[in-house]
Amino acid sequence: MAYTAIDLIEIKRDGGALSADAIEWLIAAYTDGSVPDYQMSAMAMAILLNGMNNEELAALTEAMLNSGEVMDFSNIAAAKIDKHSTGGVGDKISIPLVPMVAACGIYVPMISGRGLGHTGGTLDKLESIPGFRTDMNADRFRALLVAHRLVLAGQSETMVPADRKLYALRDVTGTVPSIPLISSSIMSKKLAEGLDGLLLDVKTGSGASIRELDRSRELARTMVGIGASHGVNTVAFITSMDQPLGNEVGNANEIKESIDVLRGDGPQDVTELTMVFGETMLELGGVDGGRERLEDVIESGAALEKFVEVAVAHGGDPSVIDDPSLLAVAPHEAMVAAPGSGYVTQCDALTIGVVATHLGAGRERKEDTIDPGVGITLKAKIGDIVQRGDPLAIVHYSDEERWDAQRESLATAWTISDQPIPTPDLIIERVDVTTT
Amino acid sequence: MAYTAIDLIEIKRDGGALSADAIEWLIAAYTDGSVPDYQMSAMAMAILLNGMNNEELAALTEAMLNSGEVMDFSNIAAAKIDKHSTGGVGDKISIPLVPMVAACGIYVPMISGRGLGHTGGTLDKLESIPGFRTDMNADRFRALLVAHRLVLAGQSETMVPADRKLYALRDVTGTVPSIPLISSSIMSKKLAEGLDGLLLDVKTGSGASIRELDRSRELARTMVGIGASHGVNTVAFITSMDQPLGNEVGNANEIKESIDVLRGDGPQDVTELTMVFGETMLELGGVDGGRERLEDVIESGAALEKFVEVAVAHGGDPSVIDDPSLLAVAPHEAMVAAPGSGYVTQCDALTIGVVATHLGAGRERKEDTIDPGVGITLKAKIGDIVQRGDPLAIVHYSDEERWDAQRESLATAWTISDQPIPTPDLIIERVDVTTT
Repeated sequence: MAYTAIDLIEIKRDGGALSADAIEWLIAAYTDGSVPDYQMSAMAMAILLNGMNNEELAALTEAMLNSGEVMDFSNIAAAKIDKHSTGGVGDKISIPLVPMVAACGIYVPMISGRGLGHTGGTLDKLESIPGFRTDMNADRFRALLVAHRLVLAGQSETMVPADRKLYALRDVTGTVPSIPLISSSIMSKKLAEGLDGLLLDVKTGSGASIRELDRSRELARTMVGIGASHGVNTVAFITSMDQPLGNEVGNANEIKESIDVLRGDGPQDVTELTMVFGETMLELGGVDGGRERLEDVIESGAALEKFVEVAVAHGGDPSVIDDPSLLAVAPHEAMVAAPGSGYVTQCDALTIGVVATHLGAGRERKEDTIDPGVGITLKAKIGDIVQRGDPLAIVHYSDEERWDAQRESLATAWTISDQPIPTPDLIIERVDVTTT
Repeated sequence: MAYTAIDLIEIKRDGGALSADAIEWLIAAYTDGSVPDYQMSAMAMAILLNGMNNEELAALTEAMLNSGEVMDFSNIAAAKIDKHSTGGVGDKISIPLVPMVAACGIYVPMISGRGLGHTGGTLDKLESIPGFRTDMNADRFRALLVAHRLVLAGQSETMVPADRKLYALRDVTGTVPSIPLISSSIMSKKLAEGLDGLLLDVKTGSGASIRELDRSRELARTMVGIGASHGVNTVAFITSMDQPLGNEVGNANEIKESIDVLRGDGPQDVTELTMVFGETMLELGGVDGGRERLEDVIESGAALEKFVEVAVAHGGDPSVIDDPSLLAVAPHEAMVAAPGSGYVTQCDALTIGVVATHLGAGRERKEDTIDPGVGITLKAKIGDIVQRGDPLAIVHYSDEERWDAQRESLATAWTISDQPIPTPDLIIERVDVTTT
């Protein structure tokens, strides 16, 4: 059947549903350039404002998935399980998590993203290990997976080209925060990895791309549904992103904290989330032992050893893992001091993420380069008691002018009150096929 | 203040209101190309779905108006009054109307459009008079207005360039039927004419661009409000476009029927609408005499003489006005016969307009050329009694293949029933500043 983009835009604009055929045509025509950006952006806005039903969503995900190469690891008998986070501040969980579960026998073909906006990216963090390369072709990806049970790569040109193009367009047309568009974008990329199971960390709160709990829940349920309809057992956790995860924000900083976790010496929140996610990945992969097994691979050093092995396989210099003090540190240091005494009741993830980005830990535009040594070490988080003058954070930066521009903004991240607030729950809920 | 298109799109996407400053920036940046089409189309869709308040609408109209040349006829003491229709099938009212009111002393600096989609355009109809030219520069426009009190032109490159660009984009992105976008588009063009008063014919029903009465009313009130806020006394009539106006659809056909009206010999509906609009334009221009005066200029031949004078001034051959049988007629003729006997209860404007367009009386794409001799002469309209086999319409066409493709569709325009329906009202309501 012949379609025109205008007809399909009008259907969506008027609140109708697009047929699977029509969606397949649209995505193919957009990918090959016969539907121009200016039509697709009008469609994206209509989707954002009028939504999509489950059939449309399944068709959109499928069409994006099929726009490029889909990996097939069916000849690897063991379970292939990946993890994806919708993005947060200080969210380095993947880095300690995947060596742990790989050490337990799970295969992890992980394709990650780069930081954009105020949230960091796993690839950028890994690249603060000197020599670590995440760009590779499909053959090398497979070879690393087979050899090490773990590969950490960026998206290749041939995978999900429709999403690459559509994501870049959404980024400049105000059409990012749409549950159908976010979920089909994430799931098409993950389904292209040839997975058996998938763990999703859906962030909610100030530093998350979707801040409201009900919308985060909708996103989690939507993605779990897409996974199930594609035969990939998918579990989502909705977790808090009101304050940063752990005490370190920045690329080298987060690698350092990840190594602490792999040594059994990480901060409580990061360690707990890593363990819960690890247990779930073992469960999804049918590997017994649960948390005890994960604790074993930490205590025995097997998880850290796996990280070293995988870093070397990706070209990385293992000496920085042995001695994290060799990791990059920006030349200048400043302290944010508590303006008063009391209980910390806010340590705002968004503010801290935006400041870190502006200092060079993230990208404001795609062409920006990352300064791996820029970072913020948090000295006080929600529930801590501080005295006036105590350090709230230590900042490492390279550019005095940038720091002058951010100094005041960073100080606003903390609220100190006379009365404590209840410690917020880190894990808000688990969503799987039985709960959707 | 510095704006970014993304920030403004997000405000509108989230249901907020844009400041006048922001709208001015956006329209200027879109016109000069620094905001690309793909951002403007997302914005247009957000405006279509989330609307605009009165302040935004005034700012949008003003920004579009100021994107190009604004005419100033303040040195012409007499009232400058124009008329605009939102477009319909068989809607040739402007053609007999403006010579009539010009003959009564009103100045009419009319800038018209071409047909697009199923509705005809005044310029295309006028050009079925051999030699008639509607493209001219501002100096010639002024000279014709001063010399003849009436000028009939197309939009120049220098007038309202923002609207030219935005309209072309809306046309291909499903963002045409938005009341703020339609009203600011129409009003920015009309306000650029340097008018004292404006009569708007807002069509409603099957053949109109806005079909629903409540939305047509909203459009009429919106445009009357914009006119008032710019000091242009604006009156709108909401009129029925469920069946075509008059008996003639097509370009030469409609010139012929317009001449009939100017000779006092036009069909009742076209004559009545022309008279009501003429009375209102006299009223807007402060010219006394009302309908009696209009009847005088018909009876005396002054109105027809004005049409001949103006046609000649535009390069047109006046002999076709003296003898309309000299106007183009397409070579082939066909009849649509009544399939049964009874009362005509439907004579669908949209169907007839679409068929006429497909036969060559209109454009499907901007680059299409018009076949001036193609036309449909209606022999039965709502309320008429027909016998099986009676002619419902006589069609003149040039291309057998096209006619074969349209023949069945055209026949569906009529419904013949045992019971008559009440004759629909031609004029549904008048909207002016006192009613909004």
